[in-house]
Amino acid sequence: MSKSTNITWHEASVNKNDRRSKNGHGSCVLWFTGLSGSGKSTIANAVSMELYRQGISEYVLDGDNVRHGLNKDLGFSNHDRTENIRRIGEVAKLFVDSGKIVTTAFISPFQSDRDQVRALFDEGEFIEIYVSCPLDVCEQRDPKELYAKARRGELKDFTGIDSPYEIPAHPEIVIETNQLTVEETVRHVFVYLRKKRILNGRKAI
Amino acid sequence: MSKSTNITWHEASVNKNDRRSKNGHGSCVLWFTGLSGSGKSTIANAVSMELYRQGISEYVLDGDNVRHGLNKDLGFSNHDRTENIRRIGEVAKLFVDSGKIVTTAFISPFQSDRDQVRALFDEGEFIEIYVSCPLDVCEQRDPKELYAKARRGELKDFTGIDSPYEIPAHPEIVIETNQLTVEETVRHVFVYLRKKRILNGRKAI
Repeated sequence: MSKSTNITWHEASVNKNDRRSKNGHGSCVLWFTGLSGSGKSTIANAVSMELYRQGISEYVLDGDNVRHGLNKDLGFSNHDRTENIRRIGEVAKLFVDSGKIVTTAFISPFQSDRDQVRALFDEGEFIEIYVSCPLDVCEQRDPKELYAKARRGELKDFTGIDSPYEIPAHPEIVIETNQLTVEETVRHVFVYLRKKRILNGRKAI
Repeated sequence: MSKSTNITWHEASVNKNDRRSKNGHGSCVLWFTGLSGSGKSTIANAVSMELYRQGISEYVLDGDNVRHGLNKDLGFSNHDRTENIRRIGEVAKLFVDSGKIVTTAFISPFQSDRDQVRALFDEGEFIEIYVSCPLDVCEQRDPKELYAKARRGELKDFTGIDSPYEIPAHPEIVIETNQLTVEETVRHVFVYLRKKRILNGRKAI
């Protein structure tokens, strides 16, 4: 057999179950959805930090690393918003395939967009987390002063002001950030992950 | 302090260096480029398999998990080919940020597209690997019968037939798949990764 045909000798590849097995934990996406200022990014990062502390393979997808990179060609039209969420869903799927627990923090206001992402995943891999917080509280927090701009008409189609937020119909988890500390919300997510055997129950947070 | 403001208490997040430190190895993209049939995907998967065996956090991006997912909206026009490579580069960057050694296996025939991807990364993170193989050997292998279709005119703008392949000007690694076994090419890549301290030198392959 000549060397030039060696290339077809083996086409072995590592798959999702191999990676989960090596890691000693499952992989999934924790899809945080909610209004701007509801606390999605803070909670997603806090969950990821605690996963990291426990030696679990994790990653965070949020505006900081997606909007200026992969999705920098997209604006805020309806088409572009849907495409934004579609791509994030596809990338989250790659991370789940790679063995990670990936958290995402995007407003993702439309049920149909979230449902399309859910459909990409195997049963139990897509965990929709509704970060619930009254609009007036979000607007009071307004960490990026986006509500102020929207109220002044400088931002159009802003979710909660002149564009709707569709509350998740059947989220796996609901978090009321107006009622809980960050630590309490993180614990809430970990209880779910252990209950679903994505994490084993041995380690306490 | 009311609970509603707790959300801004801390914005700690895990970064690339934290993940590298935990993993005990560096992260980078091994960007395989070459003609269809040159052996990119086989080698990328073989490298990833060996990384996995050594307990190193890895992932493979190739046509199988990208073309029908993230990039399923893209065709083969010049614009779409460039956008295809751009998105793959951005996703590879996210994986490098997540602490993984990610291998990519795409023809990526244009120097300018590869250079744009390289520019996304920090020094030393983008490792361009030219998978060199004579066109006639690739065409003889033709594992997906794409060359046959291109010769019959059923595929237009096929790299090597009626669309150019621009040989990398300054690749970090060149692999002659017509001269080496898969095992030898894998060893070649590992020597490079150890030399650059992306992997430590203790483990032998």
